[in-house]
Amino acid sequence: MRATFQAELDRVRDQLVTMTGQVELAMSRATTALLDADYTLADWVIDTDREIDTVKTEIDDACFQLLARQQPVATDLRVIVTALSIAADLERMGDLGAHVAKVAKMRFPESAVPPELRATVLEMAEAAQAVVAKTGSVIAGQDIERAKELEADDDIVDRLHKDLFRILIAETWVYGVEPAIDMTLLGRYYERFADHGVRVARQVVYVVTGVMPTRPPAEWNDEQG
Amino acid sequence: MRATFQAELDRVRDQLVTMTGQVELAMSRATTALLDADYTLADWVIDTDREIDTVKTEIDDACFQLLARQQPVATDLRVIVTALSIAADLERMGDLGAHVAKVAKMRFPESAVPPELRATVLEMAEAAQAVVAKTGSVIAGQDIERAKELEADDDIVDRLHKDLFRILIAETWVYGVEPAIDMTLLGRYYERFADHGVRVARQVVYVVTGVMPTRPPAEWNDEQG
Repeated sequence: MRATFQAELDRVRDQLVTMTGQVELAMSRATTALLDADYTLADWVIDTDREIDTVKTEIDDACFQLLARQQPVATDLRVIVTALSIAADLERMGDLGAHVAKVAKMRFPESAVPPELRATVLEMAEAAQAVVAKTGSVIAGQDIERAKELEADDDIVDRLHKDLFRILIAETWVYGVEPAIDMTLLGRYYERFADHGVRVARQVVYVVTGVMPTRPPAEWNDEQG
Repeated sequence: MRATFQAELDRVRDQLVTMTGQVELAMSRATTALLDADYTLADWVIDTDREIDTVKTEIDDACFQLLARQQPVATDLRVIVTALSIAADLERMGDLGAHVAKVAKMRFPESAVPPELRATVLEMAEAAQAVVAKTGSVIAGQDIERAKELEADDDIVDRLHKDLFRILIAETWVYGVEPAIDMTLLGRYYERFADHGVRVARQVVYVVTGVMPTRPPAEWNDEQG
């Protein structure tokens, strides 16, 4: 009974790692689609979001079955409840990738990103992906040290997000309001994506150590101003 | 045993209804703080968000205890798992109210909303609040008909969100980029707030009927364009 339970729990963890990989690839390709105005790649990201939603439903069902049939308590119960929550975060990260892809499609055949902002967007995307890549290895190996690194990557995303706003409101911004709206939304998508990644890692830390890592709320929920 | 279980489950439902009321009041006051540039009221909203987070933690703990001690199956299990998910949505709605309040504070003593957009913002806020008010009565009474009305309110929010973008990119927009950035983020906060409200109501419908209400994904995940 115990061996079956552990095997099923391992399978849920594997699915979460798979889902993290899908989400990472989706956001990476969404960024390429955005910067290179690649309509086909943007469509791929949107299709993949639907696949990610399906994996999420499978994980929900598996967790539900585990709860119903195995009646776990203590740490086992905590692991399953946390897995449900992690799957919800990952599913949302897939949505955010699709949102980036939709902006790419909306401005096609132009790129939605003006030349002055390409570097910032690319850096933001890379930092956000560093978060999700580490998130995957935190889930796979329950690597607590990795989880700490990931908070630093999230700080980079937040800093770049602030840089982005500074560029948009500077006198040198010549593109007017519509591209500024696109960039505001894109900045928010990357920032939220990284936030969800950090949340996932924190939840793994909580399951492994029994203590939820805390930071001052002002830092954790940092917004534009 | 069964009576105790039902009493504890009722208590979780009451807490969810309380949380929905807190979230509704917070967003209502955040809107007033935004339109009237009321710094004190904005601070109240931010403080209330912390209280909402506390209620969320209490609901999580209560659900965890119910799972651990009562080992529920079938519908009871589904109700508890759904309660966890609903609490997460409501907590996020509280965050979004705090985000609106932070924009109000950032532009104080001015209002962040230019005169031309006051009516649109007020209508968006009212439609978003209609969603959450009905969400509360759906949770309290498991009223499936009410849940359907709520989707229509969400359509109003989406329509107003599109109107907002049209106003921002029109030739008549004289306020430049920075207020457009504020309005883009504010529009997104209200739209996400209503989306979470609809999600909560759908989950209640799912628990009551066993069928998750569906709409075309394009409508459900509607974005700027």
